[in-house]
Amino acid sequence: MKPRAADDYAQVDEIAWQPFPEALSAGGIRWKLLHVSPEMGAWTAMFDCPRGSSFARHIHIGPGEYLLTKGKMEVRGGKDKGGATALAPGYGYEACNARHDKTYFPIASEFYMTFLGPLHFIEEDGATRAVVGWDQARALWETQTAAAKKTGKKKK
Amino acid sequence: MKPRAADDYAQVDEIAWQPFPEALSAGGIRWKLLHVSPEMGAWTAMFDCPRGSSFARHIHIGPGEYLLTKGKMEVRGGKDKGGATALAPGYGYEACNARHDKTYFPIASEFYMTFLGPLHFIEEDGATRAVVGWDQARALWETQTAAAKKTGKKKK
Amino acid sequence: MKPRAADDYAQVDEIAWQPFPEALSAGGIRWKLLHVSPEMGAWTAMFDCPRGSSFARHIHIGPGEYLLTKGKMEVRGGKDKGGATALAPGYGYEACNARHDKTYFPIASEFYMTFLGPLHFIEEDGATRAVVGWDQARALWETQTAAAKKTGKKKK
Amino acid sequence: MKPRAADDYAQVDEIAWQPFPEALSAGGIRWKLLHVSPEMGAWTAMFDCPRGSSFARHIHIGPGEYLLTKGKMEVRGGKDKGGATALAPGYGYEACNARHDKTYFPIASEFYMTFLGPLHFIEEDGATRAVVGWDQARALWETQTAAAKKTGKKKK
Repeated sequence: MKPRAADDYAQVDEIAWQPFPEALSAGGIRWKLLHVSPEMGAWTAMFDCPRGSSFARHIHIGPGEYLLTKGKMEVRGGKDKGGATALAPGYGYEACNARHDKTYFPIASEFYMTFLGPLHFIEEDGATRAVVGWDQARALWETQTAAAKKTGKKKK
Repeated sequence: MKPRAADDYAQVDEIAWQPFPEALSAGGIRWKLLHVSPEMGAWTAMFDCPRGSSFARHIHIGPGEYLLTKGKMEVRGGKDKGGATALAPGYGYEACNARHDKTYFPIASEFYMTFLGPLHFIEEDGATRAVVGWDQARALWETQTAAAKKTGKKKK
Repeated sequence: MKPRAADDYAQVDEIAWQPFPEALSAGGIRWKLLHVSPEMGAWTAMFDCPRGSSFARHIHIGPGEYLLTKGKMEVRGGKDKGGATALAPGYGYEACNARHDKTYFPIASEFYMTFLGPLHFIEEDGATRAVVGWDQARALWETQTAAAKKTGKKKK
Repeated sequence: MKPRAADDYAQVDEIAWQPFPEALSAGGIRWKLLHVSPEMGAWTAMFDCPRGSSFARHIHIGPGEYLLTKGKMEVRGGKDKGGATALAPGYGYEACNARHDKTYFPIASEFYMTFLGPLHFIEEDGATRAVVGWDQARALWETQTAAAKKTGKKKK
């Protein structure tokens, strides 16, 4: 039978930011993948979101929890349009199947998030743009960090 | 804060089988949705699979566990082609991200399965055909059982 | 980063029953451990429960789901005393934190159950008798099956 | 069938710290309970740990993930004694069944943590001191915040 899982640790400020795909975001969002849990399909990341950046339309396939450590995040149009506005330090629980048509950062922001299951990026009509779970996140991260090592540069 | 979740019970033999969508299966597979866990995105169902029936190509986005209570199930081509063949009574664990190009039932079979997260039905090239999680499963089930009540018939 | 989890299969009828500890049950209950998920702390087992057998008082620390494949199970005194009575084929969802003071089998019964997290066996006043999760289950199972191999006997 | 779960938001700096029980910690640790997920048995909290404070011996019954936002945390004696030392900003994954005999804060520290399942606080010999899951956490939190409202004081 399978062995115990192992503890893990990451020194967050020693990990270089990588660009988050433009197909899934706008305005220069960067990320750090901190952990994957392949057995249960969970993953954990930090996001650096410049003023005016945003994530593309997506559905949370599984619950997600964030800690906004810096800035301001407008979910579903923000509080003024019936959505929610998070202010650092803010905690949010995105329920399984929450649909976010636009997640917008009016000022420079940063957040930490744990995901159970993937994000389902969709078109306005619901058609799939991408399913991004721990496996796709890890593949992207490994490609990006391998390329970063090759060029011998680390952007912080 | 949120209240405790409630216990639940279903008398399996008093629930009528409903047809499983032909877009996702072939050969007359029928199903019973037994439970959904909306918070964590889990769901539980039974499947009745006639001789020669099969499920379409899919990826398990999250782990799944089955108990084959009757018959024989060939996963990924079956044992002869490098896949697995389950014989009742058989237990299987489908790991998160397992891809099943064809799940085939050479004889009349029945199985019970618990899913964490959705099934991602895909085309051969990986393009999304459908993402079927607890929410889609529940919507389908409610449509089917409402229709069944209307006609006043229960098929067992 | 951690690799994908692996699929698993168990031919249920080729696994010999082992006695379930008398400190946690009465009347000769036997079990088969089918799977453990060490990362998320889940486990899956079958139980063979003779007429008149019972499980000791416990709390489900995490949700559990069962399929009663044979017989009759009375939970919390059974239906007549405000609890629930399951009849095969019956499906049950035991919510996280469900407390079961007695789970009783008036006739020979068998059920399959998936657990997320441990069972907390307690005394009447709530004091801990044992915390039995995937790790304790696995340790017990490995001890029992190692001993069974040594004696060269398999009881079915 | 059960409805969708709801999104949730907490303005972290507007929630007053409450004392974490002395039976489970030493040195004046305070906490804020941010969220509970009753269906899956998960919970999320922040901890404020003064210089020299520590958590009592415990086992993680289920995986936990933390973001150390301030200070320094020594797990299992710290790096010098074969354990781990976290420095803010640091991320850690505590595997299911990780045993922590002492978690010590040599300087004033703060961390955010998501838990799946309870903490099992134990004596040196493994005997149960307390099982603290979402349900116990919520009960404690509600008692503390109700008392705080009564006295009309909020400590920040």
